[in-house]
Amino acid sequence: MDAFKTSADVLFLLLGAIMVLAMHSGFAFLELGTVRSKNQVNALVKILTDFSISTMAYFFVGYGVAYGVSFLTGAEALTQKNGFDLVRFFFLLTFAAAAPAIVSGGIAERARFYPQLVASFLIVALLYPFFEGIAWNGQYGVQAWLKASFGEEFHDFAGSVVVHALGGWIGLTAVLALGARRGRYSKDGRITGSYAPSSIPFLALGAWILSVGWFGFNVMSAQSIEKISGLVAVNSLMAMAGGTLAALVVG
Amino acid sequence: MDAFKTSADVLFLLLGAIMVLAMHSGFAFLELGTVRSKNQVNALVKILTDFSISTMAYFFVGYGVAYGVSFLTGAEALTQKNGFDLVRFFFLLTFAAAAPAIVSGGIAERARFYPQLVASFLIVALLYPFFEGIAWNGQYGVQAWLKASFGEEFHDFAGSVVVHALGGWIGLTAVLALGARRGRYSKDGRITGSYAPSSIPFLALGAWILSVGWFGFNVMSAQSIEKISGLVAVNSLMAMAGGTLAALVVG
Amino acid sequence: MDAFKTSADVLFLLLGAIMVLAMHSGFAFLELGTVRSKNQVNALVKILTDFSISTMAYFFVGYGVAYGVSFLTGAEALTQKNGFDLVRFFFLLTFAAAAPAIVSGGIAERARFYPQLVASFLIVALLYPFFEGIAWNGQYGVQAWLKASFGEEFHDFAGSVVVHALGGWIGLTAVLALGARRGRYSKDGRITGSYAPSSIPFLALGAWILSVGWFGFNVMSAQSIEKISGLVAVNSLMAMAGGTLAALVVG
Repeated sequence: MDAFKTSADVLFLLLGAIMVLAMHSGFAFLELGTVRSKNQVNALVKILTDFSISTMAYFFVGYGVAYGVSFLTGAEALTQKNGFDLVRFFFLLTFAAAAPAIVSGGIAERARFYPQLVASFLIVALLYPFFEGIAWNGQYGVQAWLKASFGEEFHDFAGSVVVHALGGWIGLTAVLALGARRGRYSKDGRITGSYAPSSIPFLALGAWILSVGWFGFNVMSAQSIEKISGLVAVNSLMAMAGGTLAALVVG
Repeated sequence: MDAFKTSADVLFLLLGAIMVLAMHSGFAFLELGTVRSKNQVNALVKILTDFSISTMAYFFVGYGVAYGVSFLTGAEALTQKNGFDLVRFFFLLTFAAAAPAIVSGGIAERARFYPQLVASFLIVALLYPFFEGIAWNGQYGVQAWLKASFGEEFHDFAGSVVVHALGGWIGLTAVLALGARRGRYSKDGRITGSYAPSSIPFLALGAWILSVGWFGFNVMSAQSIEKISGLVAVNSLMAMAGGTLAALVVG
Repeated sequence: MDAFKTSADVLFLLLGAIMVLAMHSGFAFLELGTVRSKNQVNALVKILTDFSISTMAYFFVGYGVAYGVSFLTGAEALTQKNGFDLVRFFFLLTFAAAAPAIVSGGIAERARFYPQLVASFLIVALLYPFFEGIAWNGQYGVQAWLKASFGEEFHDFAGSVVVHALGGWIGLTAVLALGARRGRYSKDGRITGSYAPSSIPFLALGAWILSVGWFGFNVMSAQSIEKISGLVAVNSLMAMAGGTLAALVVG
């Protein structure tokens, strides 16, 4: 029975990994639809390459930084527990690779290809896993200190700070450093016609993929099928629906 | 073991909910590809907004009408059984929201935004759950009367009448009331060039998403992994393949 | 408990079938984006029709050729073990239908519709299942002979030869027979402008769908949740990431 439960957990986590991997195509099409036509292909290549370099950075360096685990061992060790540890790496990689993807979208059309690739490598190999290790693996005693000082550890269930805020902070810094695209805004602050999104349908496709994949991101963060929570799923759903309606009212 | 089975059922039903949620993007791209270019963005916004308003309508009103259940209770109640009841709501919401989506596609380019939004709210809050409660929750004694009169209850496994026929009936009524788009048909009954589908690729994308999501709609209607049926899956597959070939022969 | 495990296996295999079914839309959009604009619709229709005719060919003929099983029995037999055998057919069909899809992409814009449909039928009804039966069902004593002669059977876990190499061999033969499209290459061997891919975004969409669906192809080849392997998943991931980076370096 325990073996069966383990294999069910592997499937559970793998489904999450697959859905968040798909979200990276969502990032790609969201950016493709937002940038000018001449940069569509660039956006596609960038997101795919960023994901690939993130995979290497996290496999060979980052995962070890966060969890002290290396996969450079024999197949015998890797196949224990149906390879649960490897699938956990896959799942957490899709989170790690989201950080540079958030940055990437923020500075679209304003960064050269190879320097940004190096930046993505460094984020996923060192910066992100440093914070991840603190928040999710109790490293450097930060969580222990928080508990001693304030009575509770810092709690992040599905990466709202570890992934999204961290990506947002780096992205914001980069955006402030790079500034707006030349000629994007007219004097009265409106977006000029030549910078209008090149394809609303592909932008919407990206947004839909992200909306659907989000359930893999949040629900599978339980990392074990026995900890699955319908409340997490429906909270994600209500946030999507409520956010859409709020945007409609505000817009 | 029972706890494990419950969590497996939550995952099973959640996978169905996710797949049918994705089908709503299928509705969006099917309509986007079918309408004229100038209405593509309108189609996208309409489907997303309709789904969001349906979520509110079903959460606060409709689910209670059909099943007499309200979720306005404490988190303690909501997290029982891994939140199975919430995921069941999510799954059935994606069904409920399909009804106005069917109507919406039928009257594309011929309805004003806010009146249609109000209509979607009323369908999902009252009309649909009224029929749903009769067919799937034995309300108003209709099923009991059918059984007493004819020896069997009315049986609808995955919404062929509750969702699709109901949506079709409302849509047909709306189509008859609104008539064809002005100038769409020439005198000999052919579609005029300016009304040709604006994007066959996006139309096909929508159709493919619907085809794949269909398995979540039909198979997960078992609502429990132990009741899963491969026959339901392969019936859906054969219907898709047979329908395609029949359309080829007729066309 | 055994009944529960069976239903979990049905779900496991069904998830694989759904993901590989989705890959066929990936084939469609990959080809749509690669061919000239005037052939986009043709590519969509061809892939969908090929899949449908493959479904018929494999259901009525091919599956019997490979495994000696016919589904033309009563519903009682078909619903045993939650319909596991039917879902296994569905899963293996999505593999079988990949063979003509590989051929189809290879000879895009160079084959007439109905002759190719007949070829697809013959591949999936006879040619593919003949090899499949040899490799995966021990037919005609080939595996026994290999084991007797070389000490090991021929081992193919997820169709790298049975599906992909077979499809590639047939496709190569067809490509050699048909030659390049007239006017596609200029005298110095470059692709002429009029043959440039008609839509990189749709080409990329197809590639992304294939990338994500690949995990269903490889992982669910275990055909039982208890045999799930995280190593298979992460090998697929590393192949994708490594291949992308290698293509970047070479390009």
